[in-house]
Amino acid sequence: MLSKRIEQLGIVVPPLAGPFGAYVPARRVGNLVYISGQLPMKEGELLAIGPVPSRVSVEQASLAARQCVVNALSAIRTVVDLDSIVGVVRVGAFVNSDVTFTQQPQVANGASELLIELFGASGKHARAAIGVNTLPLGAAVEIEFLFEVKGP
Amino acid sequence: MLSKRIEQLGIVVPPLAGPFGAYVPARRVGNLVYISGQLPMKEGELLAIGPVPSRVSVEQASLAARQCVVNALSAIRTVVDLDSIVGVVRVGAFVNSDVTFTQQPQVANGASELLIELFGASGKHARAAIGVNTLPLGAAVEIEFLFEVKGP
Amino acid sequence: MLSKRIEQLGIVVPPLAGPFGAYVPARRVGNLVYISGQLPMKEGELLAIGPVPSRVSVEQASLAARQCVVNALSAIRTVVDLDSIVGVVRVGAFVNSDVTFTQQPQVANGASELLIELFGASGKHARAAIGVNTLPLGAAVEIEFLFEVKGP
Repeated sequence: MLSKRIEQLGIVVPPLAGPFGAYVPARRVGNLVYISGQLPMKEGELLAIGPVPSRVSVEQASLAARQCVVNALSAIRTVVDLDSIVGVVRVGAFVNSDVTFTQQPQVANGASELLIELFGASGKHARAAIGVNTLPLGAAVEIEFLFEVKGP
Repeated sequence: MLSKRIEQLGIVVPPLAGPFGAYVPARRVGNLVYISGQLPMKEGELLAIGPVPSRVSVEQASLAARQCVVNALSAIRTVVDLDSIVGVVRVGAFVNSDVTFTQQPQVANGASELLIELFGASGKHARAAIGVNTLPLGAAVEIEFLFEVKGP
Repeated sequence: MLSKRIEQLGIVVPPLAGPFGAYVPARRVGNLVYISGQLPMKEGELLAIGPVPSRVSVEQASLAARQCVVNALSAIRTVVDLDSIVGVVRVGAFVNSDVTFTQQPQVANGASELLIELFGASGKHARAAIGVNTLPLGAAVEIEFLFEVKGP
């Protein structure tokens, strides 16, 4: 069960950060749940701000990407129970990048690897890792997710 | 009914801008309709060109984002009747941004808020708002949409 | 049959480039297959590196986009037989762009047009073409795909 696995990994799923305006943290359609782009917020602050690598190291950005997964768990709880998640379908990772930075996959791995730790084989997902020149609040990374859930 | 609501809001859904090449404005699969990235075209011209905020203000870009929704309605009509739309699932908003600009969500709100005006609670969607260094034709914003429709 | 059409077009679907880490080249859910962002790798090397147009011409980038489709065929084979593909739903094309470059659609056409050659009318897809300041390995283009397949 995912809820048990989260506990085993020592992860605390935070209360939902807000406020949200005209959009929602998660939207279900059929057995798919779309998660809004997550920023690496932790206890009300961004873990990493600015472009990689001039302001944020690859390692820091990868940890920030991991935090985006933790926040996605908080988001998905708004529409389904965590234990109803079947697996991860797609991850879209946008990395705040200096123009010469080309290791976006290494940053995105911080998210992908936690998804495997959490879900095992069913955590394996399709992924796009993209460099961009800026992101909301100056975050070093923003990640959106598509989950598969039980029924209907 | 959406068609009535569109009228109430004084929105005129334009004829489809074209030409299209090897892609289409909208593609249905099951009860989902994917809408191609919409630019803020109005009567054949872009409402806002260039990066935010050095060339386009946040307010102008937000109005441009709203226009992307109007154009998405024109696109979805190519595959389903407007009144068969059930709700909005996902919005992907790309904002042409100066490297120091970090308010992409405020720009995207122009689209999200119109979707709520049009669809009420079922207009609430998952969203990613991303900054980029340039867009087709120099548009200030490009937005793609995923709608749920009656069916299959 | 797609496999025959691929042969007619003289396209050789390569063995899968790797290694992959915590993500997979393709992920199926129901009758949809999500393909990870494809780079224009050919025989172990990128066909085009750097931003368009200062380092890579629009024509070269368009050919690189075409190669992304070839690589997507290699990716989709990991989860379904090529002949079970029904059509193409969505293409997300990210073009490594100088800040003044605004012809991302012309680059993306290299991918879209090959999809039509391969699939005919059912190859017509929704599409977003986006400019970005950098991409993994410095690739000139990265493209993700959503296919419809027979099933579930």
